Amino acid sequence: MTAKVIDGRKIAKNLRSNISDEVKELVSKYKIVPNIVTIIIGDDPSSKLYLRLRDKACEEVGIKSSHAKFPADVSEEEVLQTINNLNDDNSVHGILIQFPISKHISQDKLINSLNPEKDVEGFNPVNMGKTLIGDEYIIPCTPLAVLTILEHENIDLKGLDVTIVNHSNVVGKPLTSLFLNRNATVSICHVFTKNMKKYTSTADILITAAGVAKLIKEEHVKKDAFVIDVGIIKTEDGICGDVDFDSVKNIAGKITPVPGGVGPVTVACSLTNMVKTYKNCVE
Amino acid sequence: MTAKVIDGRKIAKNLRSNISDEVKELVSKYKIVPNIVTIIIGDDPSSKLYLRLRDKACEEVGIKSSHAKFPADVSEEEVLQTINNLNDDNSVHGILIQFPISKHISQDKLINSLNPEKDVEGFNPVNMGKTLIGDEYIIPCTPLAVLTILEHENIDLKGLDVTIVNHSNVVGKPLTSLFLNRNATVSICHVFTKNMKKYTSTADILITAAGVAKLIKEEHVKKDAFVIDVGIIKTEDGICGDVDFDSVKNIAGKITPVPGGVGPVTVACSLTNMVKTYKNCVE
Repeated sequence: MTAKVIDGRKIAKNLRSNISDEVKELVSKYKIVPNIVTIIIGDDPSSKLYLRLRDKACEEVGIKSSHAKFPADVSEEEVLQTINNLNDDNSVHGILIQFPISKHISQDKLINSLNPEKDVEGFNPVNMGKTLIGDEYIIPCTPLAVLTILEHENIDLKGLDVTIVNHSNVVGKPLTSLFLNRNATVSICHVFTKNMKKYTSTADILITAAGVAKLIKEEHVKKDAFVIDVGIIKTEDGICGDVDFDSVKNIAGKITPVPGGVGPVTVACSLTNMVKTYKNCVE
Repeated sequence: MTAKVIDGRKIAKNLRSNISDEVKELVSKYKIVPNIVTIIIGDDPSSKLYLRLRDKACEEVGIKSSHAKFPADVSEEEVLQTINNLNDDNSVHGILIQFPISKHISQDKLINSLNPEKDVEGFNPVNMGKTLIGDEYIIPCTPLAVLTILEHENIDLKGLDVTIVNHSNVVGKPLTSLFLNRNATVSICHVFTKNMKKYTSTADILITAAGVAKLIKEEHVKKDAFVIDVGIIKTEDGICGDVDFDSVKNIAGKITPVPGGVGPVTVACSLTNMVKTYKNCVE
């Protein structure tokens, strides 16, 4: 028996179809097309694929996506001024900041300056705080994608042993809050963990986002576990995840592939959040 | 060899002494005495001891502490209006809400309405979000007390295995963030956990706040672990914690007693936070 392979593209397609219907309804009601602005600083090549995928997804569901582009050496003040203008602009219904950005600009300052109601990625402290305390509102896209996949597979998280390999603000920390809010038992590992296998090999659900190709092998995984691979690594053999898929699929119960797993669901979840921020602005 | 017993009262006394010096300096500089208001709804007997201890501690360090008292059947609107007035009142430098409150009033609504700059307990989503993302500012008092005790014992958290028995907004969730921010490996257990011992018995640091007398016995603890007991339970034999102290002290390396451990440090940490909110208002 090998694991059930989760089809992220199919889940994403269903999500986009529902979002498309909802956007049509909202536009017909409010006569305003959702308008989302992405702030891009510099010319980071790793952002380009993701931006292209997201813009295409926006177009498909009827959301207007535009870019506010700055050269890599733009001043922090100028970007903050633009964010303030976008916060106040009634014709803008959501703001994203494309990371990475230039090192001379404070990522925290930009995120803190976003109007929480227009914060598509849910990284502003107000939205992160709401995620933490269980008053969930705009949830960061990757954690939301993981949750969406688990819900799609009808997993009741209460009492399950969950291990997360990542402790970043973007993935591990908000994901921890989401799992605790659903009464799972949660362990969080990362590069400083002494014995990762101790935590991964007994987990009912294993989420990994280390960005290290084939870090997670058969020996790290409990029989019949649900393995969700958030890693995306470019290798000579193409795109792969954190999980040694060919061996782990022999022990896991369910597994997400890379590509075609969490990635497309994350893009769809950013559309879900755009609809939320749009509603904040027009309702 | 039995464990080193941490003297929480001594740590708290040192803290209060430093705070007292700082308050004197600030008052001489700004000519304004720090003025903190606690909102009390109804007449919950469990709050009384804590309130009395805190008021006494305030007096000792030169902070004025007053109470805004409401009957148990006060309307939510009236309390929210009072919070708004206190937020705007320049003569008020910090606000606390004493929980528990009447069930017909939304705890979340009250906390969300606090000016984050005057939020002594750090429970407002803005402050919780900052704790989550590592931009720590006003940290909830009990987690801050745990951190203070670990710092007092010169514990470097990086890479240590930490288990927390509690997943509430007041203790477990912010404490998880604080430990992840310091690169510990963290596991969080609670009433829905299938096998708590699996997590507690391998932890270098064990924090427990279950409110269950003698829940943690020798078999739950790793040799030489640091055991921090946040539980406070009234029993026929007096006040005790979550930890079966007499047996656990034979295996732990360090242990906090109840009473005289985390409790007094928590009261002192609320003073630390009052000084922070005061500075927000006058500086």
